[in-house]
Amino acid sequence: MNLNQIREKIQIILTENELPQDPTSFLLDQRKRYISENCLLVQPNSVESVQKVVRFCAENGVPITPQGGNTGLVGGSVAKSGILLNLSKLNKIRAINLADNTITVDAGCVLQNVQAAAQEAGRFFPLSLASEGSCQIGGNIACNAGGLNVLRYGTMRDLVVGLEVVLPNGELISHLQPLHKNTTGYELKHVFIGSEGTLGIITGATLKLFAPAQTTETAWVGVESIHDAVNLLTSIKNQFAERLCSFELMSRFALQLSSNFSKINQPVDSDWHLLLELTDSLKREDLGHLLAEYLYQNGYENSVLAQSEQERQNFWTLRENISASQRDLGVSIKHDIAMPIIQVADFLENCGSELQLEYPEMRIVVFGHLGDGSLHYNTFLPVKDNRAYEQEGAINQIVYRHILAQNGTIAAEHAIGSLKKHWLAQVRTADEILLMRAIKSQLDPNNLFNADKLLPSV
Amino acid sequence: MNLNQIREKIQIILTENELPQDPTSFLLDQRKRYISENCLLVQPNSVESVQKVVRFCAENGVPITPQGGNTGLVGGSVAKSGILLNLSKLNKIRAINLADNTITVDAGCVLQNVQAAAQEAGRFFPLSLASEGSCQIGGNIACNAGGLNVLRYGTMRDLVVGLEVVLPNGELISHLQPLHKNTTGYELKHVFIGSEGTLGIITGATLKLFAPAQTTETAWVGVESIHDAVNLLTSIKNQFAERLCSFELMSRFALQLSSNFSKINQPVDSDWHLLLELTDSLKREDLGHLLAEYLYQNGYENSVLAQSEQERQNFWTLRENISASQRDLGVSIKHDIAMPIIQVADFLENCGSELQLEYPEMRIVVFGHLGDGSLHYNTFLPVKDNRAYEQEGAINQIVYRHILAQNGTIAAEHAIGSLKKHWLAQVRTADEILLMRAIKSQLDPNNLFNADKLLPSV
Ligand SMILES: Cc1cc2nc3c(=O)[nH]c(=O)nc-3n(C[C@H](O)[C@H](O)[C@H](O)COP(=O)(O)OP(=O)(O)OC[C@H]3O[C@@H](n4cnc5c(N)ncnc54)[C@H](O)[C@@H]3O)c2cc1C
Ligand SMILES: Cc1cc2nc3c(=O)[nH]c(=O)nc-3n(C[C@H](O)[C@H](O)[C@H](O)COP(=O)(O)OP(=O)(O)OC[C@H]3O[C@@H](n4cnc5c(N)ncnc54)[C@H](O)[C@@H]3O)c2cc1C
Repeated sequence: MNLNQIREKIQIILTENELPQDPTSFLLDQRKRYISENCLLVQPNSVESVQKVVRFCAENGVPITPQGGNTGLVGGSVAKSGILLNLSKLNKIRAINLADNTITVDAGCVLQNVQAAAQEAGRFFPLSLASEGSCQIGGNIACNAGGLNVLRYGTMRDLVVGLEVVLPNGELISHLQPLHKNTTGYELKHVFIGSEGTLGIITGATLKLFAPAQTTETAWVGVESIHDAVNLLTSIKNQFAERLCSFELMSRFALQLSSNFSKINQPVDSDWHLLLELTDSLKREDLGHLLAEYLYQNGYENSVLAQSEQERQNFWTLRENISASQRDLGVSIKHDIAMPIIQVADFLENCGSELQLEYPEMRIVVFGHLGDGSLHYNTFLPVKDNRAYEQEGAINQIVYRHILAQNGTIAAEHAIGSLKKHWLAQVRTADEILLMRAIKSQLDPNNLFNADKLLPSV
Repeated sequence: MNLNQIREKIQIILTENELPQDPTSFLLDQRKRYISENCLLVQPNSVESVQKVVRFCAENGVPITPQGGNTGLVGGSVAKSGILLNLSKLNKIRAINLADNTITVDAGCVLQNVQAAAQEAGRFFPLSLASEGSCQIGGNIACNAGGLNVLRYGTMRDLVVGLEVVLPNGELISHLQPLHKNTTGYELKHVFIGSEGTLGIITGATLKLFAPAQTTETAWVGVESIHDAVNLLTSIKNQFAERLCSFELMSRFALQLSSNFSKINQPVDSDWHLLLELTDSLKREDLGHLLAEYLYQNGYENSVLAQSEQERQNFWTLRENISASQRDLGVSIKHDIAMPIIQVADFLENCGSELQLEYPEMRIVVFGHLGDGSLHYNTFLPVKDNRAYEQEGAINQIVYRHILAQNGTIAAEHAIGSLKKHWLAQVRTADEILLMRAIKSQLDPNNLFNADKLLPSV
C-alpha cells in the first residue's frame, strides 16, 4: 500500500484533528542523526483510535512506528515507511489513588505534567530527566528511562505498577488496577517495559507515588581516587540507607570546565569530586549534622555541606553544566554505559590508558551517577566539525570492549534503537535473542512494529 | 524411556552423592494434596551437573520437575514422571559485594541462610516467610514469593538483580553481575521470575541487600471499619514513607481466637485491629513519640505503642498465632488473594454477605497484609474432617468471583502450580496466554519442564 492509499483509508478512520496538517516538527530525531520519511503522521486522541489505526495496519501489512516526545537518543522514534503514530494527544491524567499510592495516566502525558499532578496531590513521582519537559510516560516506559533518581527509586521499570497496551493485532491488554502482589503466570508487563515500541503501543500506565521529601542535605566531597569514592559510597549507603538519593562523580577536568563555564568556584580542590544528597520524608533537623560528622569521622575531611539553598543550587549547577561547558572541546563521542560499581575504577584506568595510547590528543570528560554505576564517558578529539564522527566506530569499539570486560552494559538507559542494534548480539546469548524473536513474532508476526529497531537484522 | 533406563543413564552422568538412596521425604507436597511418583530424584551439586541432567532430558524427551525446599502450596514441585531435580545440594553463598550491595548465591540456598549471610556482612536481606527455614532462593524466585516485608521492600521480583538459569536445552544464561541500569533488549530476567519451573532451572541469583534497621517502633490500633483502616494507611504512608514496613489487619473474631489461644490479652477492644511497625536505618529516639503523636492527632486514640521488646513480641505473637488458633474451627478453605487496597472494604462486605447467605453456619477468619492489599481469607464450615473439601470448589467460585469483581488476583503470592491452572484463563486474556505459550515453546519445545503446571492444558 502506498502512502496516498494509506492516507485515504486513515482519513476515514480518524477525525480531522487526529491528522496533523504539518508533520515537520516530528520528523527529525533529537540528535539530528535520523529522519522520518515516506510516512504518515497520525495523532490519535483515544485508545479506540489507536486500536483502529493498529488494526488497519495489521490488516494491510502497513509498518507502524510509535512516537512519544521524540527525545530518545538512539533513533527509535523515526519511521521509514507506513505510519508514524505520535501519542501526544493521548494526554490525560486518568486517576490518582492515594490508598494504593498510584497515579494512572495516558501514555502521551509529558513526564513533567505527571510530576506536577503528583505534587498537587501531595505526593512525589521520582522519574526525572533533563528532557522531562517533552518526553512522555509511554516513551519513558518503552525505553525504561533512568535519570537522576535511580539510586533511590530505581528506573522507570521499578515505577510501573500496571500497563495498558494495544497489541499489534489491535487487541487491548489492560492491567491498570494496582496489584501489589500477583503471581498469575509469566510477568508480561516487564516484557513491554523496555521493548522500544516493537511489541505494541503503550496507551496507559499506573505508576507508583512516594512521599515527598521534608529534609534535604547536600554535600560536596573531594577524594583522591575512585577507590576512595566507592568506599564512601559503600559505607554511606549502609549508614543513611534510602536517604541517599544522589551520588554523582566528576573528574578534576570535568569540574574545571564547568567551574570556568559557570563562573562558580570549585567547592574543594581534588582529583575526583562527589556531589551527594540525602533526603528524608520526615523533618530531621540534625541530618546535616549527622552527615558532616559522618564524613569527618570517616576521614572525608576535604568536604563541604551546602549551607543554604543557594549553595546547594551552585553545587548542582556545577554538576549540570558539565555537558554545556565541554562544547568548546569540539564534537564529543558519547557513551551510555553502566557497570557494577565495584568495577568502575578498573574500567576508567584500563579504558583511559588504551584510548590515550591510541589517541594521544584525546580529552576525556568523565562524570556520572556513580551511585548506580552509570557514567557519562565523553571523548573529544581536536576536530571541531562532524569529521570527529569518522572515529566514532573505532572509539566505541575500544570503550565497549572495556565495558564488556568489566561485565558492564553498552546501553545503560538510552536503549538500543537503530543506533546500537548491531551490538545486541555481543551482549546477549543466541538463546536470549531467539527468545526475544519468538516474543516479537508471536505478538507481531508480520514485523510491522518498529521493525528496524532493537533486534539485529537477520 | 522408562524409569529403569533413566536411572541407568543418569548413574553414568552423576556422582553417587547426587543420587540419594531414599527419596521418600521429597515426594509428598507441603499440603499433603499431591505426591510425586514414577520419577527419579536427583540432587546435582554443581551447575555443570544440572546442565548434564537437563541435556540428557532434552535428548531423550524425559520430563523434568525442579524442586527447591518443597514448601510451595500449589503442588508445583511434584513430579508424575521423569526426573525430580532437587536443588538442595547447590547451596553455596558465592559472593557478597558491598559496593553494589548485593549477594550472589546458589539457587539451592535456604532463605534463612541467605538472611544470615547478609546479617553477618552487616546488611539485611528482607524476604521473610514462615517457611524460611526450608524454602530456597530458587523456589522463592520461581514463585515470586511475598511474605512479611512486601510493603516496604517488594516481592522477590523486586529483590533480584540478576539470574543464572539452565535453559531446557542445557545452555546457560548467566547475568549475575550487578547492573543497576541496563536497556539491552527485552528484559528476560522477569520472564524467569515467577515462571514456576516451567522455563528452566534457576541455578544462581544475585540479590539486593539493604541497610539494617537501627530503630523499630510498633503500634496496635483499633478501628471501627476497614474504611478507617485504609484512611490511616493512606496518610501514615505519606508521613512516615518507607519506614512503614508492616500494616497488618485482623478482624475482631480472628483476634479473639488468637488471644484465647496465646493467652495474651487483646491490646485494645475494637471491631478491626491493626498491627503496624516502623523501622529506620538511623537511630531516631523520637520516632515512637512522633508515631504516638501522629495517631493521637489523627483521631486514632484507641491505640497503644509497644513499650518494650516483650510487648512488641506479644503483639506479633497475637498476629502470628491466628493460623494456629483457628484449627479448632475445623478444616479451613484458604484463599491466597490480593486486590487494590482501595477495594478491600467492598470485597469484604460483598463476599462476606454472599458466603453467609449461602452458608449460614460458615465462620470467616479475616486477616492479612492490608499494607499490600493481600488477605488471608479462611472459611470454615462446621465439618471437622476432610469432607469440608467437598465444598471447596463452590466456595472458591464465590470468593474468586468477588475478588475478580474488585480487580483483584486469585493468586497473590503462592502462584498457580497444579492447583489453580484451570483459573488462569479467567485472569489473563487469550493473547496473554498465547504469548506465555510462545515463550514456553520457544524455550521448551517438547514441553518437558513442569509440563502439567501453570499453563492451562490445551
Ligand atoms: C536533554 C536530554 C536528556 C536526557 N536525559 C536522559 C536521562 O537522564 N535518562 C534517560 O534514561 N534518558 C534520557 N534522555 C533520553 C530520552 O529522553 C528518554 O529515552 C525518554 O524516555 C524518551 O521518551 P520519549 O517520549 O521522548 O520517547 P521517543 O523518543 O518518542 O521514543 C523512544 C522509543 O520509545 C518508543 N515509544 C515511544 N512512545 C511509545 C508508546 N506510547 N508505546 C510504545 N512505544 C513507544 C518509540 O518507538 C522509540 O523506540 C534524554 C534526552 C535528552 C534529549
Ligand atoms: C508455613 C508456610 C508459610 C508460607 N508463607 C509464605 C508467604 O508468606 N509468602 C509466600 O509467598 N509464600 C509462602 N509460602 C509458600 C512457599 O514457601 C513459597 O512459595 C516458597 O517460595 C517456595 O520455595 P521452595 O524452595 O520451597 O519451592 P518448591 O516448593 O520446591 O517449588 C515451588 C515451585 O518453584 C519451582 N522451583 C523450585 N526451585 C526452582 C529452581 N531452582 N528453578 C526453577 N524452578 C524452581 C518448582 O518447580 C515449583 O513449581 C509458605 C509456605 C509454608 C509451608
